[in-house]
Amino acid sequence: VISELVAQALEGRPRAVAQLISRVESGSPDLPEIAALLAPHTGRAQVVGLTGSPGVGKSTTTSALVTALRAEGKRVGVLAIDPSSPFSGGALLGDRSMATRGHLGGLAWATPQALRVLDAAGCDVVLVETVGVGQSEIDVVSMADTTLVLLAPGMGDGVQAAKAGILEIADVFVVNKADRDGAAQTVRDLRYMMSLGSRHDAWTPPIHKTVAARGEGIDAVAKAIEEHRTWLAASGEGARRRRRRAEAEIEAIALEKVRVRISGLGADADRVVTGDLDPYAAADEALRRTMEP
Amino acid sequence: VISELVAQALEGRPRAVAQLISRVESGSPDLPEIAALLAPHTGRAQVVGLTGSPGVGKSTTTSALVTALRAEGKRVGVLAIDPSSPFSGGALLGDRSMATRGHLGGLAWATPQALRVLDAAGCDVVLVETVGVGQSEIDVVSMADTTLVLLAPGMGDGVQAAKAGILEIADVFVVNKADRDGAAQTVRDLRYMMSLGSRHDAWTPPIHKTVAARGEGIDAVAKAIEEHRTWLAASGEGARRRRRRAEAEIEAIALEKVRVRISGLGADADRVVTGDLDPYAAADEALRRTMEP
Repeated sequence: VISELVAQALEGRPRAVAQLISRVESGSPDLPEIAALLAPHTGRAQVVGLTGSPGVGKSTTTSALVTALRAEGKRVGVLAIDPSSPFSGGALLGDRSMATRGHLGGLAWATPQALRVLDAAGCDVVLVETVGVGQSEIDVVSMADTTLVLLAPGMGDGVQAAKAGILEIADVFVVNKADRDGAAQTVRDLRYMMSLGSRHDAWTPPIHKTVAARGEGIDAVAKAIEEHRTWLAASGEGARRRRRRAEAEIEAIALEKVRVRISGLGADADRVVTGDLDPYAAADEALRRTMEP
Repeated sequence: VISELVAQALEGRPRAVAQLISRVESGSPDLPEIAALLAPHTGRAQVVGLTGSPGVGKSTTTSALVTALRAEGKRVGVLAIDPSSPFSGGALLGDRSMATRGHLGGLAWATPQALRVLDAAGCDVVLVETVGVGQSEIDVVSMADTTLVLLAPGMGDGVQAAKAGILEIADVFVVNKADRDGAAQTVRDLRYMMSLGSRHDAWTPPIHKTVAARGEGIDAVAKAIEEHRTWLAASGEGARRRRRRAEAEIEAIALEKVRVRISGLGADADRVVTGDLDPYAAADEALRRTMEP
């Protein structure tokens, strides 16, 4: 029944895609089987991460980009990641006329698997949007082929971006709400900060002004995404990013497996609390137990 | 030589404490030996986490608290955790007249070990202050016996706190910069939000107004920390938190060990990228390799 579900998802059927994403989210025991069936059909989609402070308009920009990319004949998937809810209420999915949309909790291993589902289902582009801030932002960047950093005028975002080290990981800058005062200044701040920094690759991140709520400037962003895809392929950087992503993905799955196996540490923890056992010795014991057949 | 260093640290000698923290930070191969020697001397210190948005005055409040707690005859240690620098420039340590101070990167396993060093060295209280925001805030809370949530007037922090779920984890609220407009409103907002929420324990977090830069209100916070310690002991919640912390610590060490052992995933990653191998099968293979003698 899994192989049938996967076959339907490979044809791009939204219901099957939704069901697979839902299984991924819930940590279904079928995951290894699903992953094995999907594997030969993956590796085509461009994963585009959207990151930025709350209030810059990530959701609006995502929606506008979906419209723009679909107008170019592309199949688009959307994943929203909410790190504050480790488990979400399940994958949401529209009909064929809408982008495939999933909503995931902040689980390190779930997002790459959901990406694989959308990739195998024939998406040309998967937009990954984070809700909230923090570690998940960084995780999303590590999973993306192309990272969009969103800013808005007058939020002191330039400084925030520099602080968070986000300048180094942006492939495309989007200054949204560009009809507000200070948009030109935000662009100047960004240019200045970029002139100070040193990127290690040959790509110079373009800066685009948008008013996503009215769709303004979105086509140019869509074009920049496409240009970055071309550059990724030509420069070899795309292959490097995919390899790094696969390494991180394998590692996350392996660690999650170990985490599940070593659960039930209560008795060891009690001995650590009383000082009878040190945590390193306890960790060794716990790992030894997981290796027993 | 390690046993001598630990013996000196147990006497509270700052140089030895600094050297041990530095070894912890750098992931020294001596860590298991250090942990084993420290274990019988741990479990006494009250770990107090300070969390809050950038700009609320965490460092200033930490310094003021050090002064106030020392005036009560307590030995105080301070750990500053900067998640944006995975490795810091080493532990900083003042002379005996100053609080023991360490500066750690955002490594999940390093902070608990540095806490153990300060605990075994005879600290009554260890203040753990995060630099920046994000996941590390949550990690600090999970390690603390007592969590101080800092806010400042007019920063919209009340709403931020509610969003981040920080209301549920605060043991003491500190409204710092209380000489600014809006301090009373911030306190009212907090009271209102607390009236909506449901804490699962019998402790009602007090709200204290401070001007940390002038030391105002700090004694009351120090007293609240002491009262929370008494409550932790009397209610049994302290024992529960320590057990949970030890579990998390053992798990983090075990996972870090596995992570190091399975490194070198390049060849597997290449096969995942091309679709020859799915990431679950790759994870199984990687784990199998680590179990070989």
